[in-house]
Amino acid sequence: MNVHDLPTPSLLVDADAFAHNVATMAEARPGAQLRPHVKAFKSTALARRLDAAGHHGFCAATPKEVLGMAAAGLGHDLLLANEVVDPGPLRAMAAADARVTVAVDSDATVDAAAAAGIREVLVDVDVGCFRCGCPTADAGRLASRARRLGLEVRGVMGYEGHLMMEPGETRADRVEEAMALLLGAHADVGGDVVSGGGTGTFRENTWITELQAGSYALMDTAYGGQGLPFQQALFLWLTVVSVSPGGWAVANGGLKALGMDHGDPTAEGYRVLYCSDEHVTLLPLGDGGLPKVGDRVRVVPAHVDPTVAYHEVLHVVQGEDVVDTWPVDLRGW
Amino acid sequence: MNVHDLPTPSLLVDADAFAHNVATMAEARPGAQLRPHVKAFKSTALARRLDAAGHHGFCAATPKEVLGMAAAGLGHDLLLANEVVDPGPLRAMAAADARVTVAVDSDATVDAAAAAGIREVLVDVDVGCFRCGCPTADAGRLASRARRLGLEVRGVMGYEGHLMMEPGETRADRVEEAMALLLGAHADVGGDVVSGGGTGTFRENTWITELQAGSYALMDTAYGGQGLPFQQALFLWLTVVSVSPGGWAVANGGLKALGMDHGDPTAEGYRVLYCSDEHVTLLPLGDGGLPKVGDRVRVVPAHVDPTVAYHEVLHVVQGEDVVDTWPVDLRGW
Repeated sequence: MNVHDLPTPSLLVDADAFAHNVATMAEARPGAQLRPHVKAFKSTALARRLDAAGHHGFCAATPKEVLGMAAAGLGHDLLLANEVVDPGPLRAMAAADARVTVAVDSDATVDAAAAAGIREVLVDVDVGCFRCGCPTADAGRLASRARRLGLEVRGVMGYEGHLMMEPGETRADRVEEAMALLLGAHADVGGDVVSGGGTGTFRENTWITELQAGSYALMDTAYGGQGLPFQQALFLWLTVVSVSPGGWAVANGGLKALGMDHGDPTAEGYRVLYCSDEHVTLLPLGDGGLPKVGDRVRVVPAHVDPTVAYHEVLHVVQGEDVVDTWPVDLRGW
Repeated sequence: MNVHDLPTPSLLVDADAFAHNVATMAEARPGAQLRPHVKAFKSTALARRLDAAGHHGFCAATPKEVLGMAAAGLGHDLLLANEVVDPGPLRAMAAADARVTVAVDSDATVDAAAAAGIREVLVDVDVGCFRCGCPTADAGRLASRARRLGLEVRGVMGYEGHLMMEPGETRADRVEEAMALLLGAHADVGGDVVSGGGTGTFRENTWITELQAGSYALMDTAYGGQGLPFQQALFLWLTVVSVSPGGWAVANGGLKALGMDHGDPTAEGYRVLYCSDEHVTLLPLGDGGLPKVGDRVRVVPAHVDPTVAYHEVLHVVQGEDVVDTWPVDLRGW
């Protein structure tokens, strides 16, 4: 199929850019040094490509992602890098045909994991992100509690999410400070695993045993401005449905096709005036002129994760050829 | 089922607030004076309640919404209030067991509708929103073209979306100016229908024959600040998964459960520090103190439409009882 025959709005994955990103990261963080984070793409078909590139352990943000990966036969080593207290999803993960490790950061999450039959945990440590994670000083106590309850404590994790967009000149120092908290906890907890990091700190975070990165595979404009060696591989493919003599054009995808927390998307040759539910209004830049009704335009999302979560499939394209279709099968909770 | 037994994150609909909203709007805009816009809730189960309240014609933003409404037996009078040029969805709508009217604003959209077998159209007029719609002066010509091609032209539509959050003191005047453009076009186009408006202008827009409103049914914080007589009926229901001695709590829903273009959600008793993919970080206000891990919290979305589009179901609650579950069956395209 030709890309112009796809329905719109659709998400496109540029096969060559994706392959470049996978290869670039696999060179920097080969094999088990990378634990790809499926939350960024929510697709077992995409995850299978990363598995083929040598990364057999994966990271997830929701029980649904863990269960979907297990059902797809990708359950070699799944980490739920998030806290869960509800017994239902914990029991389902414990029963999955997979090696499942969950993050814990409190008595309540340790006890819930143990009660549900979870076998392995990581102690999640607060490294400055104002999100989950126990204080460094509490990590050893939690690990002891977990071990008393029969849980295997594999080590620690800590996500320096607040440093993903940190300016380059201070990033390494601030990552070192954050990881000092994690390593301090690790000294008390023990275990083989020190898990953390993300696409934005994949070079600077040399303190961990495994990197939790997902955005690098498809990328977005937020990470695109960070000077990373990854290429934009994800595009929203739209049809121009209205052109005004006033000088703007409107394409048929908007707030329900794009994560908007990082702001408007971008579009080559246009300034994005604004997005509404099912539209993006485009102003031509320079001498580009207006498109015609029926023309297709490619829009670059500002934030990959909540963009993909709106879509049912990713269409993989090479030039104008649609070469594959990957279901976004890990959506929801 | 008790609301505390629901999985999280989930969307809740407060049955009493919803009933209040439906009754309030039905009194202001009875029967065919309201054409509820399904894009705001994407649920045929919810639409059925509005049909029962006397509104038998509906408005949609996507072909999928039109086709889903038709399949649900709610196809008495469906308006696709949006332009489509792709022949596939146009042909599917033409073949649906429903009365389907589509918006047109250009030669290309008129021709595409006629070629696909669409029988009825409205001429969409630009009333100042920087989105779709032809200039007033072009509306009569487009109507003639449509009639020459065998299309029934039912009238005009024009959405004053730019005035939904207009300050109260200027709203009526600016709506009148916008609707003057629409009425000017109507004089040239003819037909019985003058369609426009939304929840934000439901009082001021006295110029139209039918109001296109959907947000009023569930509401959000953006409309909640507009002094409208509708109550907040939609909530994101979350579980607290982490509490920090630093003074914040984290609940298990974020950017993939909430439309973020209008900014962060709100939560009673808390300040929202920020949202990430699957989390919201909450700071307690006043003397409220921190919640406990496992507590549930209700978060109010800033923008209803792109919030609902992330979810598979709406759980209808009365007090603590879950009294119904409405599938969000009109998602996607």
